[in-house]
Amino acid sequence: MSTAGLLVIGNEILSGKVVDTNSPYLARELREVGVDLERIVTIPDVIEVIADEVRTMHHAYDHVFTSGGIGPTHDDVTMEGVAAAFDLSLELDEHLCKRIEKAVGKRMNESMRKMALLPAGAIVQGAEDLWFPLIRVKNVHVLPGIPELFESKFQSIRHQFGGIPIHLRRIYVTLHESDIAASLNSLLVDFAELMLGSYPRIGNQDYHVMLTLESRDPEYLQRAFDSLLSRLPVDAVFQVD
Amino acid sequence: MSTAGLLVIGNEILSGKVVDTNSPYLARELREVGVDLERIVTIPDVIEVIADEVRTMHHAYDHVFTSGGIGPTHDDVTMEGVAAAFDLSLELDEHLCKRIEKAVGKRMNESMRKMALLPAGAIVQGAEDLWFPLIRVKNVHVLPGIPELFESKFQSIRHQFGGIPIHLRRIYVTLHESDIAASLNSLLVDFAELMLGSYPRIGNQDYHVMLTLESRDPEYLQRAFDSLLSRLPVDAVFQVD
Repeated sequence: MSTAGLLVIGNEILSGKVVDTNSPYLARELREVGVDLERIVTIPDVIEVIADEVRTMHHAYDHVFTSGGIGPTHDDVTMEGVAAAFDLSLELDEHLCKRIEKAVGKRMNESMRKMALLPAGAIVQGAEDLWFPLIRVKNVHVLPGIPELFESKFQSIRHQFGGIPIHLRRIYVTLHESDIAASLNSLLVDFAELMLGSYPRIGNQDYHVMLTLESRDPEYLQRAFDSLLSRLPVDAVFQVD
Repeated sequence: MSTAGLLVIGNEILSGKVVDTNSPYLARELREVGVDLERIVTIPDVIEVIADEVRTMHHAYDHVFTSGGIGPTHDDVTMEGVAAAFDLSLELDEHLCKRIEKAVGKRMNESMRKMALLPAGAIVQGAEDLWFPLIRVKNVHVLPGIPELFESKFQSIRHQFGGIPIHLRRIYVTLHESDIAASLNSLLVDFAELMLGSYPRIGNQDYHVMLTLESRDPEYLQRAFDSLLSRLPVDAVFQVD
């Protein structure tokens, strides 16, 4: 089982100007490959704050992903933050310079040069068809904030992450949470390892609660699923999947 | 100027089963009333993790908001986490019991009783028309995860939060970020207090970058706005607002 933390960097998220879609995207992807995302932290474009959080996550999780702050402008300070997290200097990557110049079709200016400044020892990953590569420093994967790029770059390294996938069943219940809570509690006495979620829905005509049952062991999941169904009144189950 | 932190509690967010809409909602609302949201942290339904984060945020920010984990089922442990953060016991709130019984129209069962267990000394807020009230412990506002309830409960206390609102202007630019970065840097030399954001857009026909200029001082903002326009090529500005 491997774990991950996600660090979302950007004043635009905290000020409500931009909605972060990278977090739900990565959460779904990591779940699919079987990596447990344990924490998402959203912070402003401030070098010291980034450095502190990168350092903490580096120690806490197997994989760390950052989103945002790697462009050419003044508010793009993620590389500086990651470098500071590990007391590394920023160094100009000559190979990356060539790739940037080739991509833009002209000589680099000062702000493009900024994008080729990487923490010393950073690993430059990413398929050649992605014009700006993906940077990794230790277990920290530095991804861009623009959703199209975040997604394509994650896809290019997705195969590197593996775990035991989690299997999911759902039961949609017509009763209210407070009417089924006792059944859920007794289920968990018998199936202590089950990941059981209970999510009320407001304004839905057909059901009041969606129950999610999850396990890495499909047989255990099936037994828990059957057991829960037997504990609920038959007419309380609207649907299962 | 007052600051805030938001703690989003729920396995369903981290596992990608539910998209968190409360964070962008609260970010926009706090920005409107002039409170600086400085951090959003998303964590699982684990008492010790909640307690640690609540304690940290309590010290770091003027206001703390939590989202999720206050229902009647086994995975709703936010109240326990908040209580543990401040070494408080959970106590049955008799008045809240009466309100819950009145709302559901029957005697409380064990799981409803769970919802009336509050950290000792908690302040019960919220208009009478919201069937389950809003709980505050010190500077920590405990909000439900269901978006409809999160939003209505925040609205009921919105008037309590005030700051100096931030004014915003936008400039949409047809050039790329690397072509305007130098202008932005020179602007910030003259307007060091300006909050300046630069956000590239991929696939937009009309412009490549949205610039946001923000300040609590509308006159300062206007001067910075005019100054930036004068630094950009006239035909590079697609639109302003």
